[in-house]
Amino acid sequence: MTGPNAAPAQAPAGPVARPSGRLADQLREVTIERGYTRHAEGSVLVSFGQTRVLCTASVDNKVPAFLRGKGEGWVTAEYGMLPRATHTRSDREAARGKQGGRTLEIQRLIGRALRACVDRKALGERTITLDCDVLQADGGTRTAAITGAYVALVDAVRWLQTRREITRDPIFGAVAAVSVGVYRGAPVLDLDYAEDSDCDTDMNVVMNDGGGFIELQGTAEGHAFRREELDALLGLAQAGIVELLEKQRQALAA
Amino acid sequence: MTGPNAAPAQAPAGPVARPSGRLADQLREVTIERGYTRHAEGSVLVSFGQTRVLCTASVDNKVPAFLRGKGEGWVTAEYGMLPRATHTRSDREAARGKQGGRTLEIQRLIGRALRACVDRKALGERTITLDCDVLQADGGTRTAAITGAYVALVDAVRWLQTRREITRDPIFGAVAAVSVGVYRGAPVLDLDYAEDSDCDTDMNVVMNDGGGFIELQGTAEGHAFRREELDALLGLAQAGIVELLEKQRQALAA
Amino acid sequence: MTGPNAAPAQAPAGPVARPSGRLADQLREVTIERGYTRHAEGSVLVSFGQTRVLCTASVDNKVPAFLRGKGEGWVTAEYGMLPRATHTRSDREAARGKQGGRTLEIQRLIGRALRACVDRKALGERTITLDCDVLQADGGTRTAAITGAYVALVDAVRWLQTRREITRDPIFGAVAAVSVGVYRGAPVLDLDYAEDSDCDTDMNVVMNDGGGFIELQGTAEGHAFRREELDALLGLAQAGIVELLEKQRQALAA
Amino acid sequence: MTGPNAAPAQAPAGPVARPSGRLADQLREVTIERGYTRHAEGSVLVSFGQTRVLCTASVDNKVPAFLRGKGEGWVTAEYGMLPRATHTRSDREAARGKQGGRTLEIQRLIGRALRACVDRKALGERTITLDCDVLQADGGTRTAAITGAYVALVDAVRWLQTRREITRDPIFGAVAAVSVGVYRGAPVLDLDYAEDSDCDTDMNVVMNDGGGFIELQGTAEGHAFRREELDALLGLAQAGIVELLEKQRQALAA
Amino acid sequence: MTGPNAAPAQAPAGPVARPSGRLADQLREVTIERGYTRHAEGSVLVSFGQTRVLCTASVDNKVPAFLRGKGEGWVTAEYGMLPRATHTRSDREAARGKQGGRTLEIQRLIGRALRACVDRKALGERTITLDCDVLQADGGTRTAAITGAYVALVDAVRWLQTRREITRDPIFGAVAAVSVGVYRGAPVLDLDYAEDSDCDTDMNVVMNDGGGFIELQGTAEGHAFRREELDALLGLAQAGIVELLEKQRQALAA
Amino acid sequence: MTGPNAAPAQAPAGPVARPSGRLADQLREVTIERGYTRHAEGSVLVSFGQTRVLCTASVDNKVPAFLRGKGEGWVTAEYGMLPRATHTRSDREAARGKQGGRTLEIQRLIGRALRACVDRKALGERTITLDCDVLQADGGTRTAAITGAYVALVDAVRWLQTRREITRDPIFGAVAAVSVGVYRGAPVLDLDYAEDSDCDTDMNVVMNDGGGFIELQGTAEGHAFRREELDALLGLAQAGIVELLEKQRQALAA
Repeated sequence: MTGPNAAPAQAPAGPVARPSGRLADQLREVTIERGYTRHAEGSVLVSFGQTRVLCTASVDNKVPAFLRGKGEGWVTAEYGMLPRATHTRSDREAARGKQGGRTLEIQRLIGRALRACVDRKALGERTITLDCDVLQADGGTRTAAITGAYVALVDAVRWLQTRREITRDPIFGAVAAVSVGVYRGAPVLDLDYAEDSDCDTDMNVVMNDGGGFIELQGTAEGHAFRREELDALLGLAQAGIVELLEKQRQALAA
Repeated sequence: MTGPNAAPAQAPAGPVARPSGRLADQLREVTIERGYTRHAEGSVLVSFGQTRVLCTASVDNKVPAFLRGKGEGWVTAEYGMLPRATHTRSDREAARGKQGGRTLEIQRLIGRALRACVDRKALGERTITLDCDVLQADGGTRTAAITGAYVALVDAVRWLQTRREITRDPIFGAVAAVSVGVYRGAPVLDLDYAEDSDCDTDMNVVMNDGGGFIELQGTAEGHAFRREELDALLGLAQAGIVELLEKQRQALAA
Repeated sequence: MTGPNAAPAQAPAGPVARPSGRLADQLREVTIERGYTRHAEGSVLVSFGQTRVLCTASVDNKVPAFLRGKGEGWVTAEYGMLPRATHTRSDREAARGKQGGRTLEIQRLIGRALRACVDRKALGERTITLDCDVLQADGGTRTAAITGAYVALVDAVRWLQTRREITRDPIFGAVAAVSVGVYRGAPVLDLDYAEDSDCDTDMNVVMNDGGGFIELQGTAEGHAFRREELDALLGLAQAGIVELLEKQRQALAA
Repeated sequence: MTGPNAAPAQAPAGPVARPSGRLADQLREVTIERGYTRHAEGSVLVSFGQTRVLCTASVDNKVPAFLRGKGEGWVTAEYGMLPRATHTRSDREAARGKQGGRTLEIQRLIGRALRACVDRKALGERTITLDCDVLQADGGTRTAAITGAYVALVDAVRWLQTRREITRDPIFGAVAAVSVGVYRGAPVLDLDYAEDSDCDTDMNVVMNDGGGFIELQGTAEGHAFRREELDALLGLAQAGIVELLEKQRQALAA
Repeated sequence: MTGPNAAPAQAPAGPVARPSGRLADQLREVTIERGYTRHAEGSVLVSFGQTRVLCTASVDNKVPAFLRGKGEGWVTAEYGMLPRATHTRSDREAARGKQGGRTLEIQRLIGRALRACVDRKALGERTITLDCDVLQADGGTRTAAITGAYVALVDAVRWLQTRREITRDPIFGAVAAVSVGVYRGAPVLDLDYAEDSDCDTDMNVVMNDGGGFIELQGTAEGHAFRREELDALLGLAQAGIVELLEKQRQALAA
Repeated sequence: MTGPNAAPAQAPAGPVARPSGRLADQLREVTIERGYTRHAEGSVLVSFGQTRVLCTASVDNKVPAFLRGKGEGWVTAEYGMLPRATHTRSDREAARGKQGGRTLEIQRLIGRALRACVDRKALGERTITLDCDVLQADGGTRTAAITGAYVALVDAVRWLQTRREITRDPIFGAVAAVSVGVYRGAPVLDLDYAEDSDCDTDMNVVMNDGGGFIELQGTAEGHAFRREELDALLGLAQAGIVELLEKQRQALAA
């Protein structure tokens, strides 16, 4: 076979020069601020460097029609980006009259990821909606959203426990997410926008604190990636997620 | 004539007891934080007490079709509220597939208010879009939005001037807005949510720094308001706006 | 301060020359024709000069979800303009797939205005919908709509009373509306299209027959208006509304 | 074969008793009022008894994309019904966010019917839009609309001729339409609502003044109709259309 | 009268030369394949020459709101065309966000046609939905859809009978449809795309096996058609439908 | 950590019993039928067992706005499912007025996958649209769609080459896709619906004929999957895709 995808990803001679000056396996500065707004049962501002996402968790004592009367709860997510969260202004989805495919894809991902750590029987017939709104974007908004939404979810569950509305803790384990990619031939952790728009492969990884994979989404943007690159990326992601889980623990302990 | 609206608004015996403990002519604490996000040409977080609105100004080198080739610019606004900015979660307008009547009404108001201080010929054929997104709502979001968007607009114009894209300053004067209302029979300044949901009359006032009115929108929620009440409300608004214009000046001087 | 809005509205040397030849405080010819169409419980064709609006009142024995079981009724309005009611054809909103911001704003105004004279408990659990459709537009369609819709509303209530479906009259007082504006420096009553498209300030005033204000919406189109102009406009509006209320009484007595 | 549609339409023993007292071949009173509104190039209020449709013709100096640069014009129609044109209020299509199938079907029919008498080359690159809005409905709105829209179209063409924008008359012949149906076993002309909602077969017939058929739409509502019934219906329609064409001629000569 | 529609359709000197080489009264090859897909209660691929339509019948134990509790069933249809069923690709209606007028018109026609052979009381409170999706279009898709949907409907009813969910057969008689038209002056049966896009008159005829007309929709595309042409077309249609009813019988007997 | 996702996926004692009786590494019967419909430049019916997807490739001599004038082409995909392709009928997306999130997600995936084997410069300024419409669904529709769309794409490119519209072959390599999953603890290839609705992990893998990964999307439906499971799944996918690439080669050689 010949053609562009025949070109193998060559091992870089030395360490990769990331635009941010970070090491290949280095996360951006991550902060998790609880109680960012006051009305929601859980409200978290999560930052991965310049990426800032407001994640709120709202409790509603209803479930969607397909779950009514089954004694189970539901966890769902919605994602949005403020029109000028990005370098150039995007159309407001509410004004265009529909959510784009990227938005729907991301909010479906966030919802699946968070449901993976919830015992819906223990939650009872109520819905927790995680609204993840990007105030400022610099790459990795969906993985930041998952990481922050987990903390907002825990806060909402604690609110329910404090009011004794639920007795059993419906949350088992923890969930966090990070992106990895092949940037100029080298696998790197936690892509920022400068790297993301110039990388060959972009992968989002969602894992739990048991070391299991919840979701894996990898896309070759340039050349197709080889199995050994995949292995390197998974290794980076796994280490990054261990750090993120620790950040979540610290935030929840504060 | 008899009926509910025959009941005159009685002058209160003593000073009104506002839920917040404020005096009748006292604004909430107002803060204006410039440079809140980094991509927009102007980005301001404005707070009127617990009401927090992110106002960004985005410059685009195009104008709407009806202005093309006329050598004039355009200033327009969009308004949104994060689903959980309020006490109970509202549906996301992007998900519902349309902006509601209240949203459209508010963003039209913001746009008109800001255009009132812009010389569109001096702006040249470019559009400045003011996105006002409510992060947290506690009454008075539209007046906070106008007050904050003015500062974002000035920052965007300064950005154009710094890059020497425009030579003449298209902004003349300043614009600020505040709400006033009749709460339990007494005219008060800058209604918060607790007052707003329990008041008889609610009026939004937009003025410029020359003391002129740009917009006046008063609605009787309970009894119809009399001319003397209107006069009292206008007096309160006028004094409040003088304070807000000073806040804007300080923020822009910082 | 310098700039366009610094220019004070100068008192005209003599009486203003209105395009229509009317005096500053003169309404257009106003006619109110009841029973214009036959199916609706109330059906009124109201004309303010060349502006013609068909206002129908429809009774439905249901209320919106948020009122169900509360023993109260609801009054709401919808507004539309036939595509060629205006000088140039506008797109049909049904074909475009949504009502524009102006339409939503106007129908919300009409609904609020009419609810201000209805005792919703006395109406019982039923909805009266006021459809205001502009057959021909020449300025002031929203104020004509309110003035005409009041008469249609009374007719629908009488229809309910004749059928003994309600015992207590839910209507207290009367409601009418008119526009006022500053045209070429002079305050004038009841703007027609030629004046409206060339005026500095445009204000819509809704009042009841007790002399109270129900709604006040003033917009500076050119220079910001000063307090003394506002006072002059309110005086004109008040006198005009007294005349309109008399027109309504005559129509209802016929 | 057995079943409902096996039942033949029996010839009635004597003349049919129509709810309106009309003879089987008798049209309702038909009036055609030109110049009903003032802005449109053609504006006609057509009444077939209690059915009243406002037909306006608007000239635009553009053509749809598929005709651009071909030197041909276009004639199209839009149809709407005011919410309370009918016995019970219908939802406003603009509020529902789309035109229903019935509306689209009718406006496509009106457009085809009128295009059948227009030489689009002679019209030149301009569009004439026929807006047919039903103010009051009592059966036969689409056929009244076609009959009235023809007169509005002629007026719009005359307006173009007066301004010398076109030299050759693009209209050849005339077009009118009427409904016929089998009511209680008897073929009748020009169904009103009482008949329409209780008839077995309903047919809309569009013809020109050369005696040719432009459109034929027959639907069996109850039993399937036989060839001899069809023949009787076509005879009634043909005679009715001759009368309608004469009404159009008289209106245009006035 | 003068003009294009004055030109009479001249009787052709000899037999018409159809692009396909067919005789004037000759159907295309018609095939009806039952059980084309496996999930639907009825699933038929019908071909009229190169026109291929997949018709499925789906049984649902619910009825629309307007029929609830009346002990009657409902039969309805939806129509779609794959984007590349045609010579040039059409936009996907799901992507455009609405069904076009042509689509709505056709699916309303199919629904009415099929309901004409169903005793809805005997069907009981259930809905049968006929989805007619055009895989390949070569003219006559709506008539092929009706002809095929009838067979799918019968299969769905048999499925209900086999499961003893209904006792009485709700289907009486049979329904089929065909198009006829005037092609180059000659009446012909079953137009294919080459003829359809170049014909003067196009008529769709739906009949039952009792020889009754269920629906008749004729449109003059070029010159208006005369009564004698109409008679010739109806004769062709009647003979064609007899053949189609026989094809249905054979398919159902297989 | 404790909870459901702590349970490791146990290695099955013996070979897994798949509902279909297939071996763990066995594909369903795969057929690829070219020229299934006649209008499209490429038209392929692909079957993976009972899953049947019609993939058409349509060539258009235009590119989207963001590519205009860049001398590059575009390849995009749309995905749809006939309402009764599934066990129970789904709403028609065109009737609901929007494409769902799942649909958008799938068609974005198909588009990305196919673009990965196209040199868009060599394609020139034209768009190839791949419409993938599911006629019958039994699991794995998106991977079947990618596998079939590749063949339709090649046919469309050959059509361009035959007409000498392009000189250089824009296709490099080949692309195919398959699903893998953990079913009752065992990794299996090419899930059908019975397996898909009862599996713990579901992964879609897109690869090229150079052995590179183009897209990887894995989701834990039940317990989170471990690294060794992931490795086993990737091995199965890789072997399956080799078979699918061979099927494509054979089909294209026929």
